Amino acid sequence: MRIDIITVSPELIKSPFEFSIIKRAIDKKLVEVHFHDLRTYALNDYGKIDDYQFGGGAGMVLMVEPIDKCISKLKAERDYDEIIYMTPDAATLNQQTANTLSLKENMIILCGHYKGVDQRVRDLFITKEISIGDYVLSGGELGAAVLCDSIIRLIPGVLGDETSALTDSFQDDLLSPPVYTRPSDYKELKVPEILLSGNFPKIEEWRNDQALERTKKIRPDLLED
Amino acid sequence: MRIDIITVSPELIKSPFEFSIIKRAIDKKLVEVHFHDLRTYALNDYGKIDDYQFGGGAGMVLMVEPIDKCISKLKAERDYDEIIYMTPDAATLNQQTANTLSLKENMIILCGHYKGVDQRVRDLFITKEISIGDYVLSGGELGAAVLCDSIIRLIPGVLGDETSALTDSFQDDLLSPPVYTRPSDYKELKVPEILLSGNFPKIEEWRNDQALERTKKIRPDLLED
Repeated sequence: MRIDIITVSPELIKSPFEFSIIKRAIDKKLVEVHFHDLRTYALNDYGKIDDYQFGGGAGMVLMVEPIDKCISKLKAERDYDEIIYMTPDAATLNQQTANTLSLKENMIILCGHYKGVDQRVRDLFITKEISIGDYVLSGGELGAAVLCDSIIRLIPGVLGDETSALTDSFQDDLLSPPVYTRPSDYKELKVPEILLSGNFPKIEEWRNDQALERTKKIRPDLLED
Repeated sequence: MRIDIITVSPELIKSPFEFSIIKRAIDKKLVEVHFHDLRTYALNDYGKIDDYQFGGGAGMVLMVEPIDKCISKLKAERDYDEIIYMTPDAATLNQQTANTLSLKENMIILCGHYKGVDQRVRDLFITKEISIGDYVLSGGELGAAVLCDSIIRLIPGVLGDETSALTDSFQDDLLSPPVYTRPSDYKELKVPEILLSGNFPKIEEWRNDQALERTKKIRPDLLED
């Protein structure tokens, strides 16, 4: 998989790609991530990439031309399966989307910033718009890092133990059951006996019950569909 | 505001705090962010902080004792308004939660990792559990960065123009309307004439219509409540 990230602030999201799971995937050559500084494609020597919005109002808008130049250059070099725009006004990322995207070959991720991008960028180039949740961030960079992490960890060979990803929350529309590790007794708080019983069918049953109960309590909406 | 982040991988989330809005807020002394490496509180010289889960199954669990040591040390130094655990099996972050948390004084954010923390950590210390969305990440670090960004940008004085945050998506339960900037004509794609009209009441009306239409189309669920 190859991911090209277009951003006004590449330094901002460098560290998640230099440590942990994503780094391991890059080292194993399972994924390549390239950052493209939008200012390199600026209209003038001052690095102009944004301007006030037509019609007035607070906040700057990323201009269409520098983004066009950057995306067109990348598209001339290879085919892309998706050109994704990270923005809060889009469909929300979920595990199903992450699963689907983890099967793609080449993707561009464009990070919004300030008030977002000129609408014509969305009309002309973007094939998929993704929000990571119903809250506003100062830019799309963290969203891009979140999206990449959610996708990259699903690529076979990235996680040490593949079953680990399959038993995650959401893969079966249920939240995870509680987990415990040693010591079995900590300041008089004991691990549930069933987990120490060695009776694996019963443990499985307990975990399913707990997962269902937790989902009912915290996220009943997940059970509605 | 003071935020203490407890993590097994402080380097992973350093960069979002060293650039952009969060950095500006830190420089202006509007917020202090401290990272605590959980391994400093490990049980032994090998830095042991996790172990297999009771009852079997893939994935390691963060142990209660190192986390207890770290949180107890911090709590001895000052009072905390919230001790937050970042985990996918929790209520989902939204703009309302970000607004509320932006008024707090001191917060601890504990990042999950691997299969999460021993349930007793949640029972003993955590006052609030937050998920950033219905997808699984390799750790709570990116979630913590997202949460911090969503909160910190709301602190008065952090954004250059405060009205900018107020006109964001979600502050009025609507997605943002499309935005445009120069040039008014790009490869024959023209900016809607209304935005060039100078008729601000009409522009406002057009924006409201567009915001409503976009919300209906992309996120009808936001209009249901």
